[in-house]
Amino acid sequence: MSVATLDFERFARRGYPEAVLSQGKSVAQMTEIVTSWRARADEQPLGTLLLTRVSPEQVAAVHAVLPDAFYDETSALMAWPPEQPEPTGGKVVVVCAGTSDLRVAREATLTARYLGRDVTEVVDVGVAGLDRILAKRDVLRSADVVVAVAGMDAAIVPVVAGLVACPVVAVPTSVGYGTAFEGVAALLSMLNSCSPGVGVVNIDNGYGAGHLAAQISAPKEYGDA
Amino acid sequence: MSVATLDFERFARRGYPEAVLSQGKSVAQMTEIVTSWRARADEQPLGTLLLTRVSPEQVAAVHAVLPDAFYDETSALMAWPPEQPEPTGGKVVVVCAGTSDLRVAREATLTARYLGRDVTEVVDVGVAGLDRILAKRDVLRSADVVVAVAGMDAAIVPVVAGLVACPVVAVPTSVGYGTAFEGVAALLSMLNSCSPGVGVVNIDNGYGAGHLAAQISAPKEYGDA
Amino acid sequence: MSVATLDFERFARRGYPEAVLSQGKSVAQMTEIVTSWRARADEQPLGTLLLTRVSPEQVAAVHAVLPDAFYDETSALMAWPPEQPEPTGGKVVVVCAGTSDLRVAREATLTARYLGRDVTEVVDVGVAGLDRILAKRDVLRSADVVVAVAGMDAAIVPVVAGLVACPVVAVPTSVGYGTAFEGVAALLSMLNSCSPGVGVVNIDNGYGAGHLAAQISAPKEYGDA
Amino acid sequence: MSVATLDFERFARRGYPEAVLSQGKSVAQMTEIVTSWRARADEQPLGTLLLTRVSPEQVAAVHAVLPDAFYDETSALMAWPPEQPEPTGGKVVVVCAGTSDLRVAREATLTARYLGRDVTEVVDVGVAGLDRILAKRDVLRSADVVVAVAGMDAAIVPVVAGLVACPVVAVPTSVGYGTAFEGVAALLSMLNSCSPGVGVVNIDNGYGAGHLAAQISAPKEYGDA
Amino acid sequence: MSVATLDFERFARRGYPEAVLSQGKSVAQMTEIVTSWRARADEQPLGTLLLTRVSPEQVAAVHAVLPDAFYDETSALMAWPPEQPEPTGGKVVVVCAGTSDLRVAREATLTARYLGRDVTEVVDVGVAGLDRILAKRDVLRSADVVVAVAGMDAAIVPVVAGLVACPVVAVPTSVGYGTAFEGVAALLSMLNSCSPGVGVVNIDNGYGAGHLAAQISAPKEYGDA
Amino acid sequence: MSVATLDFERFARRGYPEAVLSQGKSVAQMTEIVTSWRARADEQPLGTLLLTRVSPEQVAAVHAVLPDAFYDETSALMAWPPEQPEPTGGKVVVVCAGTSDLRVAREATLTARYLGRDVTEVVDVGVAGLDRILAKRDVLRSADVVVAVAGMDAAIVPVVAGLVACPVVAVPTSVGYGTAFEGVAALLSMLNSCSPGVGVVNIDNGYGAGHLAAQISAPKEYGDA
Amino acid sequence: MSVATLDFERFARRGYPEAVLSQGKSVAQMTEIVTSWRARADEQPLGTLLLTRVSPEQVAAVHAVLPDAFYDETSALMAWPPEQPEPTGGKVVVVCAGTSDLRVAREATLTARYLGRDVTEVVDVGVAGLDRILAKRDVLRSADVVVAVAGMDAAIVPVVAGLVACPVVAVPTSVGYGTAFEGVAALLSMLNSCSPGVGVVNIDNGYGAGHLAAQISAPKEYGDA
Amino acid sequence: MSVATLDFERFARRGYPEAVLSQGKSVAQMTEIVTSWRARADEQPLGTLLLTRVSPEQVAAVHAVLPDAFYDETSALMAWPPEQPEPTGGKVVVVCAGTSDLRVAREATLTARYLGRDVTEVVDVGVAGLDRILAKRDVLRSADVVVAVAGMDAAIVPVVAGLVACPVVAVPTSVGYGTAFEGVAALLSMLNSCSPGVGVVNIDNGYGAGHLAAQISAPKEYGDA
Repeated sequence: MSVATLDFERFARRGYPEAVLSQGKSVAQMTEIVTSWRARADEQPLGTLLLTRVSPEQVAAVHAVLPDAFYDETSALMAWPPEQPEPTGGKVVVVCAGTSDLRVAREATLTARYLGRDVTEVVDVGVAGLDRILAKRDVLRSADVVVAVAGMDAAIVPVVAGLVACPVVAVPTSVGYGTAFEGVAALLSMLNSCSPGVGVVNIDNGYGAGHLAAQISAPKEYGDA
Repeated sequence: MSVATLDFERFARRGYPEAVLSQGKSVAQMTEIVTSWRARADEQPLGTLLLTRVSPEQVAAVHAVLPDAFYDETSALMAWPPEQPEPTGGKVVVVCAGTSDLRVAREATLTARYLGRDVTEVVDVGVAGLDRILAKRDVLRSADVVVAVAGMDAAIVPVVAGLVACPVVAVPTSVGYGTAFEGVAALLSMLNSCSPGVGVVNIDNGYGAGHLAAQISAPKEYGDA
Repeated sequence: MSVATLDFERFARRGYPEAVLSQGKSVAQMTEIVTSWRARADEQPLGTLLLTRVSPEQVAAVHAVLPDAFYDETSALMAWPPEQPEPTGGKVVVVCAGTSDLRVAREATLTARYLGRDVTEVVDVGVAGLDRILAKRDVLRSADVVVAVAGMDAAIVPVVAGLVACPVVAVPTSVGYGTAFEGVAALLSMLNSCSPGVGVVNIDNGYGAGHLAAQISAPKEYGDA
Repeated sequence: MSVATLDFERFARRGYPEAVLSQGKSVAQMTEIVTSWRARADEQPLGTLLLTRVSPEQVAAVHAVLPDAFYDETSALMAWPPEQPEPTGGKVVVVCAGTSDLRVAREATLTARYLGRDVTEVVDVGVAGLDRILAKRDVLRSADVVVAVAGMDAAIVPVVAGLVACPVVAVPTSVGYGTAFEGVAALLSMLNSCSPGVGVVNIDNGYGAGHLAAQISAPKEYGDA
Repeated sequence: MSVATLDFERFARRGYPEAVLSQGKSVAQMTEIVTSWRARADEQPLGTLLLTRVSPEQVAAVHAVLPDAFYDETSALMAWPPEQPEPTGGKVVVVCAGTSDLRVAREATLTARYLGRDVTEVVDVGVAGLDRILAKRDVLRSADVVVAVAGMDAAIVPVVAGLVACPVVAVPTSVGYGTAFEGVAALLSMLNSCSPGVGVVNIDNGYGAGHLAAQISAPKEYGDA
Repeated sequence: MSVATLDFERFARRGYPEAVLSQGKSVAQMTEIVTSWRARADEQPLGTLLLTRVSPEQVAAVHAVLPDAFYDETSALMAWPPEQPEPTGGKVVVVCAGTSDLRVAREATLTARYLGRDVTEVVDVGVAGLDRILAKRDVLRSADVVVAVAGMDAAIVPVVAGLVACPVVAVPTSVGYGTAFEGVAALLSMLNSCSPGVGVVNIDNGYGAGHLAAQISAPKEYGDA
Repeated sequence: MSVATLDFERFARRGYPEAVLSQGKSVAQMTEIVTSWRARADEQPLGTLLLTRVSPEQVAAVHAVLPDAFYDETSALMAWPPEQPEPTGGKVVVVCAGTSDLRVAREATLTARYLGRDVTEVVDVGVAGLDRILAKRDVLRSADVVVAVAGMDAAIVPVVAGLVACPVVAVPTSVGYGTAFEGVAALLSMLNSCSPGVGVVNIDNGYGAGHLAAQISAPKEYGDA
Repeated sequence: MSVATLDFERFARRGYPEAVLSQGKSVAQMTEIVTSWRARADEQPLGTLLLTRVSPEQVAAVHAVLPDAFYDETSALMAWPPEQPEPTGGKVVVVCAGTSDLRVAREATLTARYLGRDVTEVVDVGVAGLDRILAKRDVLRSADVVVAVAGMDAAIVPVVAGLVACPVVAVPTSVGYGTAFEGVAALLSMLNSCSPGVGVVNIDNGYGAGHLAAQISAPKEYGDA
């Protein structure tokens, strides 16, 4: 294998850094990738390298090459250099219903932060108790973009989208069993949201949601109406 | 064809009347069914005959045999004899999000009424505007059983189930397009409801929901705790 | 992780206790959950905490915090406090075809008992030998609600629903292989039951079925007709 | 188009006549097929030509060439020559639950009769009322092969297969709506039958079921044990 | 039917006007809806009413009540009042591969315009000829949000997302046959886009895409970095 | 668990013995089942007990109770008593394309033998080399029923069914990868066989196929025509 | 609509002409397309314009602009200019099982001919009678590429692929009913062909198959080994 | 098990050697297969034996019998005799988007090489950066057949097919997660390619793609036009 597939030009071309889905890669491949990246980073600005779904073995291999790399256990995400940029642009609010969805929600949160946004996490929004959602109305309405992470019936998505005026990025999760069908039930629910203003990403794709949210809330040239 | 397939003993056996799914039956078959029923009704108690999904041609054919048969255009349901029984047992509340689901909701309402229940319909419950649902909290909490009819994301089901202590019968509808998949999205959402206490029936099966709700709220021998 | 997602108000709001799906949670998370619950239980009435699908490792962790917690191996269910309430309301009958479905049936049984119902289990009801079902006709007809647990062709559901006048809660199980499709065949069979009066829950959701059955057979204010 | 695709050798090769699925063929194609068949029938023994799913326009076109061709409206099946052979071999019993399945059941019945079997039809077998099935136990047990035709939950298949010792050919029908999925629910239920001894054919394939039943009950060289 | 289900408060609550999916509604229902809207519009600011998927019969009924309503034949969209607001915020670019997708693309374009955005349509972007896409690079890069409309392999989505730094809203269309599966192939392709920054809406949901794009490019309080 | 679910009356009722799907059962359950069977076998004729899909651990547990039980490693099938009955009735031919399908084919073979039939296995029938099939024409035509076991394209089923006049029982196998979809491709191919005379059983259900074949070829009262 | 989406450069870029899927286009759009094409054809070499799936109304509209355009009723294909090029390259053999698949097979045949190949059609190849296939062995082995068109079990594909050494292009057709699932059964069978050397195109895509076959058999620079 | 299922005549019949899918076979079976092959190879020309998806245990077993067998770790492919034939015929170019697809791409490469073709691999073709594809335009256009290997959105397939005039063999891979559905998303995308000239093989079937590509680019008798 050569590392030819790393897109070193992406930062220059799109303004956003490269990310590597570590799942399915060998420890040797991971070592080669980060070694190559570190070498290239001396030559040109590449932004922050994000590594998603990193296994414990891969974490060790990466730390052997990049000892100061950031690692978050909940989301299994690594970042190098470890410093998060100073936030610019709008505000991202990431909401999820419970601890089972936290893995994906945190991946979205960290991705958006490393892409330069201010992110707030709200982790106890469930529709079974409306009072709890209504209590979060202010923080939700302070967002420039909301990332809503949910499995099973994904009912928080239309409820949240009905409460805010900003765009909602919806991430189905593979949480649940039986007819949850590994996230398909949540995905279909989100695509059929009765509230407009919802864009959906792949199941468990917290990285993609955080990336899209960062783009949506990027600093803009056009001002307030 | 003989009418041997009508279950004249069902009323005696289960205490609930026979119903005929008219869809897919010829006008001649409908005429034979109601003629046979009328004849048998002179001989034994059969309860009310319900005819569901009746086409305009079938309505005329039934009225030719049973001129006083009840007919509701919204739900395409007929009943004979036309009188609804005096309500007994508990209270049924039928909720749906909008006019598109009304056809199915009304079928549930009329079925439960003809099976002897007091039914209230609430037709403007949508999750996009939580204030509207909260405004209906009292009527919802007055129910002994709720029938929730919804297509698309079906998000009203967990929201309503979270507001009440009684059982919820959920009916997915084939409303919507694309990934609504003729009601499959709503069905999956309902089966994965994050609020317990929800039993689901077939897509567009308003009759089945009304029947089940009538059974759940039937007069009981055991009193209040 | 914080335990903010436990719904301590659920018992007050709906009259039914909280339940935690243990599957997918770490031992540390389980410890935190039960520790938090125990602390809160001193402050307000919370009802019984149910833990479903508990792994042997989780059982040990829970028992370390709540030594007297009830544990049933067949259903992998725990409960605390361990005492079952004195039964009120109607009678629940849980039926299944064989030992393969027992895991789910027992979860339904124990859930309904901890929610305050009198439950009878009938575990040898198969349609291949009708005599065996007919021999159980009396116990089935004594029920105020039947929970029918079945995989594969799920044929016992319409047969049982045809024998009783009360509601039937149907639980598809993931038993079987090939075209059983992890419970989908049974689910579809149940949703298409030719006998009305059947409400369906998610595949393998014994907890949900027991909860719904307990709600259906809860003590009622309205008497016998 | 040439009629080269008619298999004139099938009768000689397999002992069973050719059948033509008329659905999707033009009137001109049907005319060409039966004209060609009639001509060839003068030259060699071809057995009976069966035409299935014949539309009214096709019936007229066939009758123009073969005025004495048999036509059954319920099943939309034609046969020529019209005479049914003298029955040999074992007894076929065709069962279905109701009038909606009769179209397919009749196709099976007529196919088996034209292939030389004695066939009895039982059209009121439903599992909701077990007494009605039990009343038919004797005729079912007189069969050498049973064809069971059913849509929706298809529960009669395992019930019937549990009552008899002979093979059961199961035909799912596209009757029903919503999650019946045009016969898929019935197909899956049949493939997962808890009673062994069931072979399944394509949805609505009454012809194939009648053919297979005729083969199973063909005269045999080996005697009774 | 009452018009209670119109959400007159939506404009006040979310800042975006109500839209009505006309498909599946009767002419009488459409008349009632627009009559009610016109009456209410005298009392409170409601914004522009959008009617999507309007049939020719419905157009006539709407024009009888609102003679000056805007109507676009390509997208079957109506709007009232007919005037588009003065554009504010960012720039929306709508791209599609060909005339078959134009119906959906135009719905997105008009929706975004009526919600107050400046929209440019690019209708000849196909990946089979890369030169044509590259020729549009400048207009694509001038966008603050791109709406990409595509059926079949939907390959323009990752290609376009790779060319721009702004968010992409992807709309699968039901164009194609066979394994296009009414838009499912395009939907899956979009959800698996190898370029990040893509949010997906329901199949053929041009309205939803236009709405989401208008929200993403709404005037912002935070300036350029 | 009690062993109440063993159907001790099946042999008396249907003339075929009980079979137990061992997969998913614990070693303790298996021990209880065979212990109970052995005790009952002293009291009444039960026929041969078949145990399918037995794991090595289960084999040991069964042999501890029934030391002389038959065990075949290829099919993972056990039988007790170990003696096969003297063959009666017609001849069964089991065909499969290769070694991957042998596991299922052997289960069919042994089941039919223990149910009293003479069985011949043909294991190298593939359609890629027609000469090999044609070389087996005589043995295929000597069959009273053929069991055809195949995965992937299952093309041997219509080829074999076109060569013989007797019924064909088709068993899809989960062999293959990707779009073989664990046997679904083979199942669909079989259900759509262009040769009539094919009855299909569940994926990998060698037991069911052998059982059905044994019923089809059971000794008959009616003689050769 | 503008005709901007016609790819006038395709002939120059790839050496193959443009084709237009007429299905779903209005008569006005078809008129605009062919008018534009005719005008451009005066300016540059465009090759032959193929129009597929042309309805009778569209045929008339095209003939009004291009009176000499070729039209084949069986395949609903038009071509202009009408002359087929002198054949070059290898030989294409198109096989299908019967008249139902002829529509698609003919589209493949004509496409390959208009792209410059010598094509032979074999329309009576079915696996139920192997003698008929074996009788065609010589013509099949004379091919440089075979196009195999089949619905339902698609068993001719592996049989034909096993007989020839050249590549096979397989086209599933939507012929059949029930579990044929509009061509999905045939598609899966083809993708799982036990004979290597098979490339599959979309369901009913005769055009694509003819195109691919013409490319495979295009004149080559490298000679015989 | 006997090795009767090895097709020793395949090389003589089709000119291409046998291949064995090792996945799912025991070490003993592998030993028997290669032992049998080696013995037969002394008697008749068999070509090269290819073993695909070989596990490390199987590699050792094969090397015990055939010490000089070729083994490639990336693709898990073995070949014996190890020498690749001198290339004849046309040129094959294998393209894939990244390292995740390399396993399948390499299997295609090696298969085509062992079948006698000259193969070039291009492993960094992604559509997110069009410049990188355009930089490879020359090597792509030098191909007589392209094998395109891709998972997820598979967008490189239509892009590459639009750049070349030769046939494209497309291989979907099971790379990705969630709605990649183990390669189904890529498969559907490929079957719906907006560029004609694409033939698709089973998911992850690098062997089949290499085989088909070798057939397409085999030495031809007909010369350049």
